[in-house]
Amino acid sequence: MTDLLWPGDARAGDLFTDQSIVYAMVRVEEAWLAARGHPASLSAPVDASALADAAEDGGNPVIPLLAWLRAHNPAVADRLHTGLTSQDVLDTALVLNLRAASAEVTKNLNKQVEALAALAERHRGTRMAARTLTQHAIPTTFGLKAATWLHSVLDARDTLSGAADLPVQIGGAAGTLAAPTALAGDDPAAALALVAAAAERLGLPVRPPWHTARAPFTRVADALVTCTDAWGRIANDVLLGSRPEVGELLEPAKEGRGGSSTMPNKQNPVLSVLIRRAALAAPPLAATLHTAAADAVDDRPDGSWHVEWATLRTLARRTVVAASQTTELLEGLRVDSERMAATLVAARPGIDAERRSTGGAEPYLGANDLLIDAALARAQGKPC
Amino acid sequence: MTDLLWPGDARAGDLFTDQSIVYAMVRVEEAWLAARGHPASLSAPVDASALADAAEDGGNPVIPLLAWLRAHNPAVADRLHTGLTSQDVLDTALVLNLRAASAEVTKNLNKQVEALAALAERHRGTRMAARTLTQHAIPTTFGLKAATWLHSVLDARDTLSGAADLPVQIGGAAGTLAAPTALAGDDPAAALALVAAAAERLGLPVRPPWHTARAPFTRVADALVTCTDAWGRIANDVLLGSRPEVGELLEPAKEGRGGSSTMPNKQNPVLSVLIRRAALAAPPLAATLHTAAADAVDDRPDGSWHVEWATLRTLARRTVVAASQTTELLEGLRVDSERMAATLVAARPGIDAERRSTGGAEPYLGANDLLIDAALARAQGKPC
Amino acid sequence: MTDLLWPGDARAGDLFTDQSIVYAMVRVEEAWLAARGHPASLSAPVDASALADAAEDGGNPVIPLLAWLRAHNPAVADRLHTGLTSQDVLDTALVLNLRAASAEVTKNLNKQVEALAALAERHRGTRMAARTLTQHAIPTTFGLKAATWLHSVLDARDTLSGAADLPVQIGGAAGTLAAPTALAGDDPAAALALVAAAAERLGLPVRPPWHTARAPFTRVADALVTCTDAWGRIANDVLLGSRPEVGELLEPAKEGRGGSSTMPNKQNPVLSVLIRRAALAAPPLAATLHTAAADAVDDRPDGSWHVEWATLRTLARRTVVAASQTTELLEGLRVDSERMAATLVAARPGIDAERRSTGGAEPYLGANDLLIDAALARAQGKPC
Amino acid sequence: MTDLLWPGDARAGDLFTDQSIVYAMVRVEEAWLAARGHPASLSAPVDASALADAAEDGGNPVIPLLAWLRAHNPAVADRLHTGLTSQDVLDTALVLNLRAASAEVTKNLNKQVEALAALAERHRGTRMAARTLTQHAIPTTFGLKAATWLHSVLDARDTLSGAADLPVQIGGAAGTLAAPTALAGDDPAAALALVAAAAERLGLPVRPPWHTARAPFTRVADALVTCTDAWGRIANDVLLGSRPEVGELLEPAKEGRGGSSTMPNKQNPVLSVLIRRAALAAPPLAATLHTAAADAVDDRPDGSWHVEWATLRTLARRTVVAASQTTELLEGLRVDSERMAATLVAARPGIDAERRSTGGAEPYLGANDLLIDAALARAQGKPC
Repeated sequence: MTDLLWPGDARAGDLFTDQSIVYAMVRVEEAWLAARGHPASLSAPVDASALADAAEDGGNPVIPLLAWLRAHNPAVADRLHTGLTSQDVLDTALVLNLRAASAEVTKNLNKQVEALAALAERHRGTRMAARTLTQHAIPTTFGLKAATWLHSVLDARDTLSGAADLPVQIGGAAGTLAAPTALAGDDPAAALALVAAAAERLGLPVRPPWHTARAPFTRVADALVTCTDAWGRIANDVLLGSRPEVGELLEPAKEGRGGSSTMPNKQNPVLSVLIRRAALAAPPLAATLHTAAADAVDDRPDGSWHVEWATLRTLARRTVVAASQTTELLEGLRVDSERMAATLVAARPGIDAERRSTGGAEPYLGANDLLIDAALARAQGKPC
Repeated sequence: MTDLLWPGDARAGDLFTDQSIVYAMVRVEEAWLAARGHPASLSAPVDASALADAAEDGGNPVIPLLAWLRAHNPAVADRLHTGLTSQDVLDTALVLNLRAASAEVTKNLNKQVEALAALAERHRGTRMAARTLTQHAIPTTFGLKAATWLHSVLDARDTLSGAADLPVQIGGAAGTLAAPTALAGDDPAAALALVAAAAERLGLPVRPPWHTARAPFTRVADALVTCTDAWGRIANDVLLGSRPEVGELLEPAKEGRGGSSTMPNKQNPVLSVLIRRAALAAPPLAATLHTAAADAVDDRPDGSWHVEWATLRTLARRTVVAASQTTELLEGLRVDSERMAATLVAARPGIDAERRSTGGAEPYLGANDLLIDAALARAQGKPC
Repeated sequence: MTDLLWPGDARAGDLFTDQSIVYAMVRVEEAWLAARGHPASLSAPVDASALADAAEDGGNPVIPLLAWLRAHNPAVADRLHTGLTSQDVLDTALVLNLRAASAEVTKNLNKQVEALAALAERHRGTRMAARTLTQHAIPTTFGLKAATWLHSVLDARDTLSGAADLPVQIGGAAGTLAAPTALAGDDPAAALALVAAAAERLGLPVRPPWHTARAPFTRVADALVTCTDAWGRIANDVLLGSRPEVGELLEPAKEGRGGSSTMPNKQNPVLSVLIRRAALAAPPLAATLHTAAADAVDDRPDGSWHVEWATLRTLARRTVVAASQTTELLEGLRVDSERMAATLVAARPGIDAERRSTGGAEPYLGANDLLIDAALARAQGKPC
Repeated sequence: MTDLLWPGDARAGDLFTDQSIVYAMVRVEEAWLAARGHPASLSAPVDASALADAAEDGGNPVIPLLAWLRAHNPAVADRLHTGLTSQDVLDTALVLNLRAASAEVTKNLNKQVEALAALAERHRGTRMAARTLTQHAIPTTFGLKAATWLHSVLDARDTLSGAADLPVQIGGAAGTLAAPTALAGDDPAAALALVAAAAERLGLPVRPPWHTARAPFTRVADALVTCTDAWGRIANDVLLGSRPEVGELLEPAKEGRGGSSTMPNKQNPVLSVLIRRAALAAPPLAATLHTAAADAVDDRPDGSWHVEWATLRTLARRTVVAASQTTELLEGLRVDSERMAATLVAARPGIDAERRSTGGAEPYLGANDLLIDAALARAQGKPC
């Protein structure tokens, strides 16, 4: 899976591709068979596009997948899927894909925390002019700027960590677990145990059916957007700092990156541009998921369920891409301390006026060190 | 404050009005004075509209408020605001208003949890036809439907409870606490203590400056939308149930409500209509706050800070209104069990076919009771 | 009506206030009376807030307005509103308010076209460095930049001019004109004539009922957003140009504007900041109106109608505010040609490399003059 | 190209796939060569995924495409692309793809107009209960309902027809046409003639560079959303009419469509479900494009350009899919006139009360016939 119109998409690799969704759906069916005492390793289709073409008639890809699985796994054809409904399989497959994508994002957030902590520490004495409403304000340090970025990344990590432990979603045809109960000898507790056993095989926590209670999906979507918010905010500062008139920050150099089709020696801040792009696109995708959640009706909604799938996938893949780009950006960010110092000198007259107005004396950097310490402590999981 | 075009707006009363923001800003200035050892009860303007008219030149309402306060509180005029920046005052005032609104929402969520638990318990045996993709599916109970609604409301309550403990936002002109440090005899730790003291007077937790790290605002916005999602989803079911062709649910009766300007004996499900309206409007407002967060640059952004204020207010007030309407809806919801039973009988042929296909026998309601028990247990804070 | 949290809101004056909506609804009732041969000048309520408080029970403000009008205009109490439904009155009142707001926006667009044409003409020889992906590119002129801004403003004006001629919306209780037909002696053609007569008195074109066909509202909303897009794009360039490191553009000076609560000699580009704010907030509001249009059902929808009212008002008022701010910005924009020239010299090495790569010789400004001419011609309504 | 998570995606076929974008970019390069007097039929890459993987370093797919083209078309390698910038090629390729998609949408709109006109005519006497705010209101006809749907579709067609004639976008490195002017012997008029010649070969109208004036893209996006609005609104009525309790409308039957993975004789209104899905997803995509347009800065923006590409593609492909589904739905829609009549009889008591309140007599359908006539006349391009 590639997307020519989303440069960098390849960074998301096999996460949440059509094929990975097929495999996830097959894993759900396998887990369900195993939970019922019929473990089997199913032969799975390797060409998702045929399933995609056949998905319209039933309104979802599970029905053609089942036809394929039954044809190619005759030994379990009769038992397959019994007790489940399409939504169980697709929702739980989405959960598996979201968890994989979130794990990749988290791995990157962890690296970013390290990179930012190092920047904050290294530059705690690197003075620069703060800027408010585009104008020079009082002095700050690049270390403190990095510490503030770090808080945003930590906020994103906290939010994602509270949202990414998505549970299994199995409820049967209408959320009552009717067929699983029948399967379990008319014993409702045994039906719940079946669900729990399937969940365990998939490595998922249990939760009662949430087929029309979609907060688990909106929560993870909001968390992913909180990530792109944090990265977009960083990219904006890098983009400004990369402007030749400012010249305080430079993206990591990489052979062949940042070139132009017409201007050979131009060096564009490509990573930041692409990160910023992702941050612009993400919030409306989460809004779509909220609208879908709010629009739910009945015991399986007539459209608002269907709009979630591609929206979750697009949001998740793009967040993984931006995560990786931001890690690379932060790990190689180049800081021009001299240029920062020079700008601060040039901004001096205005700054001095401010200082007089507050009766300020040295140390004019305020609580710079303590604030950096607080961010570093938070990064290490200490109370700040 | 009223809004002719948002019927029900009066339910939000004085929460987050222009005047309540003025009072909150004055409280912040008072807390700051007190933290510095100069407690004073400031005379505050009672006409926010003059401040509003004067707010454009400085780009925010704090500057004209300070002019007013200095003129009307001559004893503290010199000390007032020293060490703070406009954003400190406005952000923290927004925090105070958001907390008040969130508290009101939480109060309603608690009542809704009670009402829904009672509905789930009372109707655990009230059979009805489940509906999927608009068509009759297998049987369920209204109790289980209420239990699923309850999960959504509990998700919303969990999310809001994790987001509503908004901290103080004080960082001085550029987030370095420079002026507070100067005020505190050039002692950064004392500057932090000043902030902590002000926060304590305001009843707020402390956090390092988050002037450009806006996750606290997006988090509460996402939580408010998670609330309207839950309520919108309930309203959809009530609206469908209120249709004469379905006739299973009826809004609480209230003298004079639900009338028509032309059809005297028509009874419209007004509460649900207005709740649904709120659920449609909320997601894009949260998206605006995420875009603003992602768009932040520098040490005070050039527009994305400014767009947050009215957006937060609109979202918060409307959520309070919808909270109150949903409470009233749920506390008085009328359930027509006979109609539900009759529909189920009529839907029998299709349902029987499904049952045969899964080899289902009685009890055909699956794990209905256990699933209701699980929701009730979660509502009582027990593990489910 | 003021909004403390939307500085500059006062620029929208009485447009689309609660009171102006009341007056517009009264005008619709008067026009309907007159069309039926009973002209009357109705006594109208001057306190919209009482109506607002009473609007919830009926779900819209028309019902309490009618009660008030009947009580205070006893001579026509019996005839009032006969044949109309609430939606007719409210929709048509929204139309009247949208047209007034659009007219104000258009007045500003016309002034902006003049100001931009003058800038493009005056600065056709003012060389500056173009910037692409934040980096210096080849030379351009400020005149051409203004010409490109001008195209955006002309696009906005074209779009608004195609959308602002909103028609009357009268259909009776369900869009059949049943009651108007009864009123007109059971003559459908006479009923249509009644609608046409009312429309004429209101200065509105006629169109068959569009109670559930909402493109007239989404179209004007899209046009308003096209305006804020154009202005936001201009504001971004001014904000960048106002940065001390760039220093090419300066907002018009105004005594007392752009000050800071802590830094006395700081000069913030307040107009651009507030314009940019509006541009960030507008697109999701139009999205809400599209979602509402798409969500319509039946012959009066259960929530998606209701969400339109406040959304249209907020979008329209804010667009008027931003229109006025942009006019002021463009009419007084200060251009530092020397700084532009100096930056271009400094950017020379990279630019020279580009030039060699394309074999470029003088005149290196390409089709600068012809492109400016084309924009000026378009501004004058000539083919370009 | 298939999308497993957007059932029906195959209906969009080759429109706006990665490969079709590659071909369109090649066409632009060919047209530019030809305009300069060097016509050539370029060998084009048939595997877009390699280009996609290589697109990140330059931030767009044009740079790797050029490398490929130069390697595989050695005869024109030196001349290729000279005078153009990446944005010229990609923007114009997007234009070509948008036009193809819009043409497909228009073809469907035309069929829908015909189908709706036939429904309106055929059912002008098919009485049914109107519904407002979910409750039965006065009588209407299904013909008039179809006529109102028809107005929405005509509005969409009008809007799209005003937006789909997208122009060429060629401006060179910074919108000045510097390199084309150099190519044209330093003659700016000749440079404009080059652009015009390229445009003519591509079948596109000319317009001065709109590299940062993006209304052409937002306009077509708004038009596409106006289409999905119209279809979503229709789908909602069909979904309601398909409910067993209502039973007035039925989707066209198709062997194998609408089945369930667990309930064999259930018949789901799949087309309407999928259309409604598209209508929920579209508005936020257009909002993203507006945000991108408003966020533009400089002479090529740092992210807001990049976010447009995939957003336009997703919106366009999905609109094509929904267009085709809606055509199929409307061409085969089944109307149960008897059920409509029966519901109307059952709703009688309330309706009679309304009638008395307005003194209504027969013909109680108001201007039903004239309103249908007006819609039919508009469909035929006559004034209505």
